[in-house]
Amino acid sequence: MTVRFDLTAIDGAARAGVIHTPRGDIRTPAFMPVGTAATVKAMRPEDVRATGADIVLGNTYHLMLRPGAERIARLGGLHRFMNWDRPILTDSGGFQVMSLAGLRKLNEEGVRFKSHVDGSDHMLTPEHSMEIQRLLGSDIVMAFDECTPFPADQGVARASMELSMRWAARSRDAFGDRPGHALFGIQQGSVFHDQRGESAEKLRAIGFDGYAVGGLAVGEGQEAMFGVLDYAPGMLPADRPRYLMGVGKPDDIVGAVARGIDMMDCVLPTRSGRTGQAFTRRGVVNLRNARHRDDPRPLDEDCTCPACRGYSRAYLHHVVRAGEVIAMMLLTWHNLHYYQDLMQGMRDAIANARFAPWQAAFHTLRAEGDIAPL
Amino acid sequence: MTVRFDLTAIDGAARAGVIHTPRGDIRTPAFMPVGTAATVKAMRPEDVRATGADIVLGNTYHLMLRPGAERIARLGGLHRFMNWDRPILTDSGGFQVMSLAGLRKLNEEGVRFKSHVDGSDHMLTPEHSMEIQRLLGSDIVMAFDECTPFPADQGVARASMELSMRWAARSRDAFGDRPGHALFGIQQGSVFHDQRGESAEKLRAIGFDGYAVGGLAVGEGQEAMFGVLDYAPGMLPADRPRYLMGVGKPDDIVGAVARGIDMMDCVLPTRSGRTGQAFTRRGVVNLRNARHRDDPRPLDEDCTCPACRGYSRAYLHHVVRAGEVIAMMLLTWHNLHYYQDLMQGMRDAIANARFAPWQAAFHTLRAEGDIAPL
Repeated sequence: MTVRFDLTAIDGAARAGVIHTPRGDIRTPAFMPVGTAATVKAMRPEDVRATGADIVLGNTYHLMLRPGAERIARLGGLHRFMNWDRPILTDSGGFQVMSLAGLRKLNEEGVRFKSHVDGSDHMLTPEHSMEIQRLLGSDIVMAFDECTPFPADQGVARASMELSMRWAARSRDAFGDRPGHALFGIQQGSVFHDQRGESAEKLRAIGFDGYAVGGLAVGEGQEAMFGVLDYAPGMLPADRPRYLMGVGKPDDIVGAVARGIDMMDCVLPTRSGRTGQAFTRRGVVNLRNARHRDDPRPLDEDCTCPACRGYSRAYLHHVVRAGEVIAMMLLTWHNLHYYQDLMQGMRDAIANARFAPWQAAFHTLRAEGDIAPL
Repeated sequence: MTVRFDLTAIDGAARAGVIHTPRGDIRTPAFMPVGTAATVKAMRPEDVRATGADIVLGNTYHLMLRPGAERIARLGGLHRFMNWDRPILTDSGGFQVMSLAGLRKLNEEGVRFKSHVDGSDHMLTPEHSMEIQRLLGSDIVMAFDECTPFPADQGVARASMELSMRWAARSRDAFGDRPGHALFGIQQGSVFHDQRGESAEKLRAIGFDGYAVGGLAVGEGQEAMFGVLDYAPGMLPADRPRYLMGVGKPDDIVGAVARGIDMMDCVLPTRSGRTGQAFTRRGVVNLRNARHRDDPRPLDEDCTCPACRGYSRAYLHHVVRAGEVIAMMLLTWHNLHYYQDLMQGMRDAIANARFAPWQAAFHTLRAEGDIAPL
């Protein structure tokens, strides 16, 4: 069985569909919770599934260093290791190693870097990244690229994009033919229309199972990001899934779907859940704030997640303040549940050709803000 | 409905029974997980229940300081606050305030102390402890006592015991008549047979719904503790539950049940679960140890807890080393599951008049130790 993408509805630029994989279907637009070190932090995998997630993301960089890709392979692969039998997308490791300022050196071959865990020397190349992702047993493999820093002038952006395109070709060659597994290419070109077009052309010529819009969500801001998303997804093959990496806040996600993006991932719902921040239909709620101290109401009375069904804001405030683990567990669950509800809302709206009014209602409720204190 | 204890089987000194409360039955011998700050750390309450726990313990000291007993009362009581609808036993706060070396001052009236949270001044007395436990909505309330330090000479121990007995009488008076709620007295007397007897007599004269053996598990060691348990429980009314506070390791628990104890609590399974220590039928396993790094086997292949059914020792090792929250979640669950399995094993053995052979098998398997590395 191969990985296949069925587009089931289009509403404006927004698309709904299904990516069929041997490990299960991925309903799009899809949000992928991040499971960096073989765990979606503070969640059991069955609970990640219960929020509605069809797929999780794993980080090649973290896993290659600890516990090691060969070790995971010996133990039966990442799915068995982390007890998640549905699809997994792994990044290439490129983004993380580029972030190791002062600890990495890039050349045509790849990137040499030092581990943040034990300081040991490592090299990542397109070939090595493909091998690691194969050892992990990833269902959707990402090509190895350089995430062009922002801002970059045209010359820097072009050199970076062209390097990434050469690495994309090497990734494709190294990946080979692996039925049931998909390889995604990554478009670069910073905020430059012509470069985005050239990058898309080069990727199409190589041929991938899906295409990511790379180099965004790196500090350019929502307006600039949407500016690129106004044209970049349309340069990629319409019959393949389009993945926006590392995005984002709820309104980023809605804006990206409105512009033709099918898949996203972000640490925000999980990371925020560990610091007392909750995402709701009415915006962000900081449970650490004293105004919740005596509030018997749930975080969101219409939410069906365990945090909202079982606990008051006063309780959530208490356990956040006391630094209790259950605060991380409940708020992470809520945030992932909210994100998945958001995706389901968009999938339904697109299927019913009502994405524009859905989007308007989304913004209206957020503009009202959180419920007033009692 | 009142709280009622039915003894259903006696095997040697070991007893099995049921404490009936309006919030549900407590099967004895019972192990009570500790939910210090309105949460059994790293567990959702439904998962605590799933391990087999009939009752949890809450700490008056912690809850009175944060979030405050009056606040919890306004929010509907501790059960609703922490989303646990089964019985809760609360301690009196006495043990914790006595532990505040340098920050507390004891006199006949009670104990004055400073909060570890914000340094504010507080006073705990028998009357105030009863009031706080009433505000929390505790099902089983503990009398306010002084946990006699160990070692104590006969004079110090006697003065402490006699103070605790005066406080027991004041606790009884302050508790009043509260149908559906039980008040337990606490025997003191250190390691002195005559003082234990006197304490038991004084408590019987006051009259309680249950009786704790206090002043143990405070550094005296297992041999000395068992020495006291050889006679102290027998001094207490046979038709009321006997509670050994703050115990303990699995072999402490088995030895206590063998000596006539019906209820216990301890932070050990939860605290150990947060530091990579697992309790198994074969003894303690430290998952942080490198020998588990490549081990595909479960922690205990016969255990039905989620940690043992879904994950390898290699995975548990990885998440412990990486400091992941799921390590705390899975190992706490396992440890509580193991403790509850232990209690169920003893309840069954006592019911079948096979406690002695059960106890021998328990020690034999532990003596074999953990499974050999692969």
